[in-house]
Amino acid sequence: MTTFGFTLHATDGAARSGAIATPRGTIRTPAFMPVGTAGTVKAMLPESVAATGADILLGNTYHLMLRPGAERVARLGGLHAFMHWNKPILTDSGGFQVMSLAGLRKMSEDGVAFRSHIDGSTHMLSPERSMEIQRLLGSDIVMCFDECPALPASEAEVARAMRLSMRWAERSKQAFGDRPGHALFGIMQGGVTRELREESADALTAIGFDGYAVGGLAVGEGQEAMFGVLDYATGFLPADRPRYLMGVGKPDDIVGAVARGIDMMDCVLPSRSGRTGQAFTRRGVVNIKNASHADDPRPLDEHCSCPACRNYSRAYLHHVFRAQEILSSMLLTWHNLHYFQELMAGMRAAIAEGRFAAWQAAFHAGRAEGDIEPL
Amino acid sequence: MTTFGFTLHATDGAARSGAIATPRGTIRTPAFMPVGTAGTVKAMLPESVAATGADILLGNTYHLMLRPGAERVARLGGLHAFMHWNKPILTDSGGFQVMSLAGLRKMSEDGVAFRSHIDGSTHMLSPERSMEIQRLLGSDIVMCFDECPALPASEAEVARAMRLSMRWAERSKQAFGDRPGHALFGIMQGGVTRELREESADALTAIGFDGYAVGGLAVGEGQEAMFGVLDYATGFLPADRPRYLMGVGKPDDIVGAVARGIDMMDCVLPSRSGRTGQAFTRRGVVNIKNASHADDPRPLDEHCSCPACRNYSRAYLHHVFRAQEILSSMLLTWHNLHYFQELMAGMRAAIAEGRFAAWQAAFHAGRAEGDIEPL
Repeated sequence: MTTFGFTLHATDGAARSGAIATPRGTIRTPAFMPVGTAGTVKAMLPESVAATGADILLGNTYHLMLRPGAERVARLGGLHAFMHWNKPILTDSGGFQVMSLAGLRKMSEDGVAFRSHIDGSTHMLSPERSMEIQRLLGSDIVMCFDECPALPASEAEVARAMRLSMRWAERSKQAFGDRPGHALFGIMQGGVTRELREESADALTAIGFDGYAVGGLAVGEGQEAMFGVLDYATGFLPADRPRYLMGVGKPDDIVGAVARGIDMMDCVLPSRSGRTGQAFTRRGVVNIKNASHADDPRPLDEHCSCPACRNYSRAYLHHVFRAQEILSSMLLTWHNLHYFQELMAGMRAAIAEGRFAAWQAAFHAGRAEGDIEPL
Repeated sequence: MTTFGFTLHATDGAARSGAIATPRGTIRTPAFMPVGTAGTVKAMLPESVAATGADILLGNTYHLMLRPGAERVARLGGLHAFMHWNKPILTDSGGFQVMSLAGLRKMSEDGVAFRSHIDGSTHMLSPERSMEIQRLLGSDIVMCFDECPALPASEAEVARAMRLSMRWAERSKQAFGDRPGHALFGIMQGGVTRELREESADALTAIGFDGYAVGGLAVGEGQEAMFGVLDYATGFLPADRPRYLMGVGKPDDIVGAVARGIDMMDCVLPSRSGRTGQAFTRRGVVNIKNASHADDPRPLDEHCSCPACRNYSRAYLHHVFRAQEILSSMLLTWHNLHYFQELMAGMRAAIAEGRFAAWQAAFHAGRAEGDIEPL
């Protein structure tokens, strides 16, 4: 049986390309993980998600523990069988979602007591319970339970949350135990304060994890501040372990993060935008609901090989969006996930061939060009 | 180029199996036509609709003329290219939908003036305009413009509507002209009155059409009355032309109609039910939202080869329905369309082999059995 392992294939500046081996298959890095919140990537069959080039999905502990319930998923054979996805799955710890339930939660050193947003029932999440849920789900990459404060926050508040998260990381490691073929990732906190980030990285590496996430970013600080943190923070982490930037992001966020040494990312953006009529292309964002598309026989992106671009005109995509047809969400989500995976594939190839700077320049030039002229 | 033509392969009692040849492919009969109201079979990619075994789709003139507009569809290459479906398409005449716009329409000998339910704009439908729209859409099988009264209605009202429809059928034929490879179907009216049905059939056959629809049924009269009409009405129509029962129906309606000599049907039921959590199986209807499915690891139907049955448990289908995931509509619609097409394939084979009575008995026995016992 393959054990979990990370191999670095090439570096180009701070950017890295490599592969994470797992018993369920290889994850090519830099990797973008589509989000399957409640056991489905919205509006997509899992075989279609795989067809876009995704090697791994993210599942949400918070949503799945409430509905259908982690014990139920375990009885049904685990999340992979339940949702018909046999490649790797990373699960978050539930910490991020539960913290955002302002008014419905109560924090303590032990963990977080909270009420379900679905039915008001009471639940508890702690490092131990989060590890148990992620084990019940059958997650391949398990995340430590942490507290992620929204920014802006006072430095004292950020420091308190970070130190609590480090104690919880220790407890997470203890509770996770020894599970060959499964990985546990630590999560660095510390907001936008360099000393706190370094303290957090030191605490995590002292415990020792299979991979390290940069948490507490993309929470309101803006791209410049996020890149500012990444400029130093990835360097605090061991080079021989994957580095995961949580909840990122827009295409230019992703490219900038990869340029700063990030190996993995996840975001709901491609799927959520697909449902609201926004399509990502090499030339920026297309709002398919705009009347300018109503008579346009051209595809969204003539160079894209996804089904939405291969088989349909902008006029059709505009029509099904306006008519509120489910097919609109299906096609635009597929296109966006395809675009995000092509972005990652492009970066992996460029890094491997030592031409990442030129690739980045071309990426930004394409976006600066803007969408094709209306007919 | 193949011209339009109908070949009868076998009969078994009143039931018939055969094939309709068109330049866009063969339609095996008895045929069930999924409904693609606004240029999409809701929640389905067209290649998935084809994978269920559908040889032909139905498109709605009323919906398409209002949005995106027939002239626009024509500029974009016709409905087949627009919606990425290259097999045959039958379009209705718009008559049925426009008649149901009570308060928003005004009838005359010429046609129907009405207001759009989408934006209130004013439009006109007449035999001539309906033929023009169906030509602009590129329909393979065009339906005459008719008036279909809801039942119950007085015999006088039914007779008046039928005779108007026959005058409109004459005008439809005139306006349709000579279009090799395209077919025009007449629509019999006359409610549940035998003499009116016969008068209508005589009027239509005197004009001469490529096929004949039985209209004005499945509009509130109930299954017994509908079968009562079909018992004699199909016999009024030429045996060498396809017979189409419009807007039907539930599986047992379909089986009963085929037993009475019907060759084609259409209905929104499989797709609409899919979106509301109802699944059709050999053992009747399954309401996937019922709590009894929450822990059930078994497929909807162990003998079904659709993706919903092959890859997912009832527990998963229950979960995604409860979580209001788009995937629920996608999977259950697929299953239902697959079930309806398997039903047709089963009848075609049974008729061809002269065992339709036994097939019907097995069909009803399966449904009488009811769903599998909860665990």
